[in-house]
Amino acid sequence: MILNYEETWRKLNAADDILLLTHRNPDGDAVGSLFGLYRQLKKHGKNVRCLIDDMTNSLKQAVDESAFDDFAPSYVITVDVADPALLTPEQYEKYGSDVYLSIDHHGTNKNFAEFTLLDPNASAACEVLYDLFGAVGEEIDAETAKCLYIGISTDTGCFRYPNTTAKTLRTAADLVEKGIDNGEINRIIFETKTKEYAAFEKMALNSLKTFLDGRVAVMTLTLAMYAACRIKEADVAGIAALPRQIEGVEVGVVLKERENGSFKISMRSNEPVSVADICAEMGGGGHKLAAGCELTGTEDEVISVLLSHIEKALT
Amino acid sequence: MILNYEETWRKLNAADDILLLTHRNPDGDAVGSLFGLYRQLKKHGKNVRCLIDDMTNSLKQAVDESAFDDFAPSYVITVDVADPALLTPEQYEKYGSDVYLSIDHHGTNKNFAEFTLLDPNASAACEVLYDLFGAVGEEIDAETAKCLYIGISTDTGCFRYPNTTAKTLRTAADLVEKGIDNGEINRIIFETKTKEYAAFEKMALNSLKTFLDGRVAVMTLTLAMYAACRIKEADVAGIAALPRQIEGVEVGVVLKERENGSFKISMRSNEPVSVADICAEMGGGGHKLAAGCELTGTEDEVISVLLSHIEKALT
Repeated sequence: MILNYEETWRKLNAADDILLLTHRNPDGDAVGSLFGLYRQLKKHGKNVRCLIDDMTNSLKQAVDESAFDDFAPSYVITVDVADPALLTPEQYEKYGSDVYLSIDHHGTNKNFAEFTLLDPNASAACEVLYDLFGAVGEEIDAETAKCLYIGISTDTGCFRYPNTTAKTLRTAADLVEKGIDNGEINRIIFETKTKEYAAFEKMALNSLKTFLDGRVAVMTLTLAMYAACRIKEADVAGIAALPRQIEGVEVGVVLKERENGSFKISMRSNEPVSVADICAEMGGGGHKLAAGCELTGTEDEVISVLLSHIEKALT
Repeated sequence: MILNYEETWRKLNAADDILLLTHRNPDGDAVGSLFGLYRQLKKHGKNVRCLIDDMTNSLKQAVDESAFDDFAPSYVITVDVADPALLTPEQYEKYGSDVYLSIDHHGTNKNFAEFTLLDPNASAACEVLYDLFGAVGEEIDAETAKCLYIGISTDTGCFRYPNTTAKTLRTAADLVEKGIDNGEINRIIFETKTKEYAAFEKMALNSLKTFLDGRVAVMTLTLAMYAACRIKEADVAGIAALPRQIEGVEVGVVLKERENGSFKISMRSNEPVSVADICAEMGGGGHKLAAGCELTGTEDEVISVLLSHIEKALT
């Protein structure tokens, strides 16, 4: 059942012993919305915990250690999760069919929870949370504002992407006024590369190939490259934006080699091409301009399958 | 004499036959404020022209061809110019000592004009213009909003840099609401690289060296590199941000080789280091975190001089 802000807030108020979950390989919006909601529920004296399979450095200080203690929840709430299959396999097994409330901004949300608060026009789950808090008169402190700001700035590419609305920018303005150091936060998230990342990026750029008269660019990230640069996949997420940045490219593709011999595909497009549609044909999904899927085969086989689907969409 | 918004607007209203100038090698804020002010003065029936030594592609449509016709001005107005020495040599010779009004956001503004409208807390000259228009009840159309948005997004690195205040974000929200396609504007400015740029960037990254225990990173852009990639210096301005992005780097330096054997130096820092102070010692200037100067000598000589000044500032 789809709820409005007031109904959602009443459900939250009535609940206790709450476990908060977000999607696996969590990005800034996943962690920001998880910790932002955690902090606000704690303020109301709730017994609440978070489960997360990886941690964004810049948010470590936002929650106390006890946030991750083991416990038996009465209510499970997900943030920024469109589909329970995006939880970790363990979380999916344990909680996937038993989610009480889903707070999300993905138009593709599968309506899997008993109750859902969804705004597909929001740039980020953190924008939905900010609107929720605003609608019910909840004050937020600077640390919670930082969580929400990080979610919004991550999901909008720091206000670059087309999902950045006037409301998104005003929300960011409000959050900055809570006393966060947005310049420093942005510097850490968007303007800092480790030496390992810089080396990896150079290799990734060297792997770039173009197809279909330069309308498609494909970059391949191999397990050997990660090993050579001593870097984890989660630390090079930003690389996925690079192929689409070359002038004339309509679909930018990143192939990420998996241990099991398959490739995880990350696809970005420019208007009007919908990579959500292209990826859906191959069993994946996502947003119109940023989507993904998984394919098995050699690099050449996978690229050939991808190009046949992309070519149809480009006509 | 320093004016407030109302006084500035009265001066503009009383003037006619107006020539608008901005600094040489104009960036998005220079062109955006030039064309934004041009469009607003034209709306009031003023006889007004622009002079500009280079053109940002994305703004070409903002002004009519006649904006650049030759004429003998009665009033000269500069936007985004801290010092008349930043005009082209010809413009400096002809108009440098005769500027009627300077509209600017640089704290380093030399107060060279008869009248000055200055807000050193504004992120961009375009933010000053927006505040001016707002203070006197001037409505702006979508095309003028686009000019101002481009200026603000350029000077803030699309709202990444510490000069992005809550007011900056609200101004951007207002401008987006005028009906501009901010996602597409940002894609063109921040997310698009020509093949030539991509090749140049790879060479530039290869030239990167670090000094003083990794606290300083220096990149050298030679005339041969520009020639090999068939690219102009104005088209690779964004490269200056790269050295500072490596983790641990406090001062990022870009050396740009000049035809006359000197190097133009572009310096970026992270708080608390002031490259404005470092560059001032060597006859240059700029903002605290982004400044520049010019030095003569071989690459090694220039780097050695730079390091001696930077080292003092890092203690």
